[in-house]
Amino acid sequence: MSAGVRQTQGVRKICVVGIGAGDPDHLTLQAAKAIGRTDVFFLLDKGETKASLIELRERLIRGYSQPRKRIVEGRDPDRDRNPADYTGTVADWRHRRSLVLEELIAEHLKDDEIGSILVWGDPSLYDSTIAILEEILERGAVEFEFEVVPGISSVSALAAKHRVGLNRVGQPFQVTTGRRLAEGWPEGADDVIVMLDAQHAFTKYPDADIYWGAYVSTPDELLAAGPVAEVGDEIVKTRTEARERHGWIMDTYLLRRRQA
Amino acid sequence: MSAGVRQTQGVRKICVVGIGAGDPDHLTLQAAKAIGRTDVFFLLDKGETKASLIELRERLIRGYSQPRKRIVEGRDPDRDRNPADYTGTVADWRHRRSLVLEELIAEHLKDDEIGSILVWGDPSLYDSTIAILEEILERGAVEFEFEVVPGISSVSALAAKHRVGLNRVGQPFQVTTGRRLAEGWPEGADDVIVMLDAQHAFTKYPDADIYWGAYVSTPDELLAAGPVAEVGDEIVKTRTEARERHGWIMDTYLLRRRQA
Ligand SMILES: C[S@@+](CC[C@H](N)C(=O)[O-])C[C@H]1O[C@@H](n2cnc3c(N)ncnc32)[C@H](O)[C@@H]1O
Ligand SMILES: C[S@@+](CC[C@H](N)C(=O)[O-])C[C@H]1O[C@@H](n2cnc3c(N)ncnc32)[C@H](O)[C@@H]1O
Repeated sequence: MSAGVRQTQGVRKICVVGIGAGDPDHLTLQAAKAIGRTDVFFLLDKGETKASLIELRERLIRGYSQPRKRIVEGRDPDRDRNPADYTGTVADWRHRRSLVLEELIAEHLKDDEIGSILVWGDPSLYDSTIAILEEILERGAVEFEFEVVPGISSVSALAAKHRVGLNRVGQPFQVTTGRRLAEGWPEGADDVIVMLDAQHAFTKYPDADIYWGAYVSTPDELLAAGPVAEVGDEIVKTRTEARERHGWIMDTYLLRRRQA
Repeated sequence: MSAGVRQTQGVRKICVVGIGAGDPDHLTLQAAKAIGRTDVFFLLDKGETKASLIELRERLIRGYSQPRKRIVEGRDPDRDRNPADYTGTVADWRHRRSLVLEELIAEHLKDDEIGSILVWGDPSLYDSTIAILEEILERGAVEFEFEVVPGISSVSALAAKHRVGLNRVGQPFQVTTGRRLAEGWPEGADDVIVMLDAQHAFTKYPDADIYWGAYVSTPDELLAAGPVAEVGDEIVKTRTEARERHGWIMDTYLLRRRQA
């Protein structure tokens, strides 16, 4: 019944494993089994990844992998964090990253072996790993099969901590970025989940209710909720301080606009 | 580090546990531990729940709970499946359901005990359990603390099976219902996840690409993908047949509109 890792004879396999949003106990049994079957772990993003993410990854590999597994690291290409042309820059960075990973696969993954890439949260949510693998396959220089293991996303983790539903009865919600929310409240939804917000875009909407969380489900977790008019300033202050203290921040929030 | 179930002395505790979308291996370690700590399982929805959902729930309780746990069942209030006033009808059904659960808690959950409700997928996504508990607490007749354990949603499971991202680079997506999609393509997003669609609303959008799945991550899983113009009819046929064969269907899809 479990999806597992099915392998065709002689074919290399890559497994993209969602590991949850910070709590080691977010790991699913499916992900733990995938880690246990892995011959080679590919670590791609040491350069850009925050310390606690690296720690979680290492802890899970230590906890669930076989002694004979190998770990290979690729240098992550540099990335412009505030580009003028966002989509173009991301595409270029993905392309360079796909070249790095392609070389690692060609060099380190033998026939019939399974290589895994551990991905923060759920691999389907604002993550480039799947697109990078597709790009490598399209180039056709190396061949492999690949599979995705879903994970607990930061969005599910946030909602659980606030004990709140993402949608209201029969209503839609939108998931978007801080960059877009700063341009205006999205059309078509009164409930908005915001990721990748470096600019406190919520401050534009004092009448909305916010359910905010940073480092959700890690030991550094910070939570706040209430009308933006009441808690917005406090969140900006907390966020700025936490970001200075840690050197980085990961936060997500649900903005709920009151309905007529 | 793990959230766990923290308990205040003398207080009853309810744990809303997301169990994933069908594969028993979707269970997280956090959920397995929550099941293991549970004194009383509340089963509320035997009436409306499909056989395979009941089976999964029983299998997980069998697999991870303590021998001394109790299982109590409440009769689920009847529900009008095609009401004229959807939101009002749901509110009324929730209310009646909250009365059933309130009675069960009052009667069966002792001080310092932990009661759990196992929820399909992720509790934050189109599920009423959290709202029902809030309603009981608001009435004030019984007291308890409650906690939510996130789960793998059917949306994450669908995306993993199709090995596709829910969003495109830097772009938003909307999650909505079949009922709403039938009224028109949602404003503000070119990528739409559709749940609770009993009417094949996707057939209205022949130019979009669809990533469809029914009974995702169960042994009955059905998947299809492609332009709606090419695969739409086949999905309608497959869906209709499967629904007759099983007596019910659970399907979800991502609709992706091509961008200029
Ligand atoms: C590149 S995206 C990756 C999302 C990831 N795939 C997921 O499923 O959560 C990074 C963004 O996810 C959100 N995020 C990830 N982990 C988080 C956490 N533990 N707490 C709060 N937000 C988090 C933040 O909005 C951050 O900017
Ligand atoms: C009441 S909602 C509950 C959603 C659940 N909380 C979750 O996280 O997936 C029921 C809807 O979820 C979707 N769904 C749930 N399980 C599914 C599965 N295994 N395959 C496809 N769709 C599923 C269908 O759209 C169904 O109509």
